[in-house]
Amino acid sequence: MASVFSKIISGEIPSFKIDENDQCIAFLDVNPLTKGHVLVVPKTEVDLLFDLEQIDYEAVHAMAKLVAKAIQKALDCKRVGSAVIGLEVPHAHVHLVPINTIGDLDFTKSRAKFSKDELRKTAEEIRNFL
Amino acid sequence: MASVFSKIISGEIPSFKIDENDQCIAFLDVNPLTKGHVLVVPKTEVDLLFDLEQIDYEAVHAMAKLVAKAIQKALDCKRVGSAVIGLEVPHAHVHLVPINTIGDLDFTKSRAKFSKDELRKTAEEIRNFL
Repeated sequence: MASVFSKIISGEIPSFKIDENDQCIAFLDVNPLTKGHVLVVPKTEVDLLFDLEQIDYEAVHAMAKLVAKAIQKALDCKRVGSAVIGLEVPHAHVHLVPINTIGDLDFTKSRAKFSKDELRKTAEEIRNFL
Repeated sequence: MASVFSKIISGEIPSFKIDENDQCIAFLDVNPLTKGHVLVVPKTEVDLLFDLEQIDYEAVHAMAKLVAKAIQKALDCKRVGSAVIGLEVPHAHVHLVPINTIGDLDFTKSRAKFSKDELRKTAEEIRNFL
């Protein structure tokens, strides 16, 4: 069965897209730690990021770099943290999270809630800096 | 003043080294979340990982991939998580941490303590799988 991320990639599930190319896609996490929490996902469906072919692995990190810089410019945060955990969805992905303290990257925290309008606006704010 | 990581790179401060090339170095975090917590550090001293030149940025992630696979083979863990936070030392670095649950990558947790002999043995166990 296609992962939830593959369904986002195919458009079957809508998303608030930030960036996309042949190898990967970036969109807002709809269950975010905070405003501007983005996922960068390879289009190849592998469980472990470290098992990606080198070309896809580099593409994910190249997109993560561009998007992180855009988040940093668009939103009020000390820096953009990143994390790869992968215990939730078996389709490799990089979390990009605006942070001000170390605790802001704690994935056991309760998640923030935003309306679709707020998510749409946040995605647009970030895209403006790509 | 040189960062603590630059002092490790120059050899001024000893470390339990896992891997090294012209662009980056990997060594055990001496203040680890758990056994096998490794830092991958570019030799260029920049604060933000996302500000690295592309060639150094790719080199850090290529080393992270190799070392993460070695950690996964050497140690008993579900997977190897990674994180970039950077609020502690102003010299960009990637954390690689063996994890079994999402909470294992929580950097607000108290740190584990290991003797030098234990750290030396862990480094050797990981290096054996490089």
